[in-house]
Amino acid sequence: MEQGLLYDFYGELLTEHQRKIYEDVVYNDLSLTEIAQENGISRQGVHDLVRRCNRTLQDYEDKLHLVERFVKIRGRVEKLKGLTGNAGITKEELLREVENLSLQILEEL
Amino acid sequence: MEQGLLYDFYGELLTEHQRKIYEDVVYNDLSLTEIAQENGISRQGVHDLVRRCNRTLQDYEDKLHLVERFVKIRGRVEKLKGLTGNAGITKEELLREVENLSLQILEEL
Repeated sequence: MEQGLLYDFYGELLTEHQRKIYEDVVYNDLSLTEIAQENGISRQGVHDLVRRCNRTLQDYEDKLHLVERFVKIRGRVEKLKGLTGNAGITKEELLREVENLSLQILEEL
Repeated sequence: MEQGLLYDFYGELLTEHQRKIYEDVVYNDLSLTEIAQENGISRQGVHDLVRRCNRTLQDYEDKLHLVERFVKIRGRVEKLKGLTGNAGITKEELLREVENLSLQILEEL
């Protein structure tokens, strides 16, 4: 499961301290040395914290499967959107596809 | 926010003990007295546990807003599905609506 998606979904369940360091490493692309100095911990400490955060985020996903549900739904919605770019589609085909895909999505919601 | 939805999304984050009692109260419709006797706790204990679970589930939602996101998406997908029951809709209207709604959903995913 992609790190960014997991953080997007469950990041708020980390502590503020964890989030700050996690974002510095993963999003702000600061060096471990820089982050370590700024926060008064060792490079290894930063590394361990990120690894622990990834584990925590994955644990939430293993229990809740909400990223998985969202990703599935997104795939189907992209299919729906794709229909509108198919110039040759008939109205009947369009109606049938919209009905099928929206029913499939509703089952997952 | 509806109790059942919150439990559906975040219930797995409660302990097994909490889940068992919560489900007996909310889904299996057992009486507090019955549940209290079965679990060797007081009626008040059962009542407090359920209240604490509701608080915990709501706290997760306050942080993550995932039920809110799902509910919004569901509304739009229901609209999409509703289009297929509109006999008078033209192909062009259908294409436009499908594109608009699917774009809106993708923004929320």
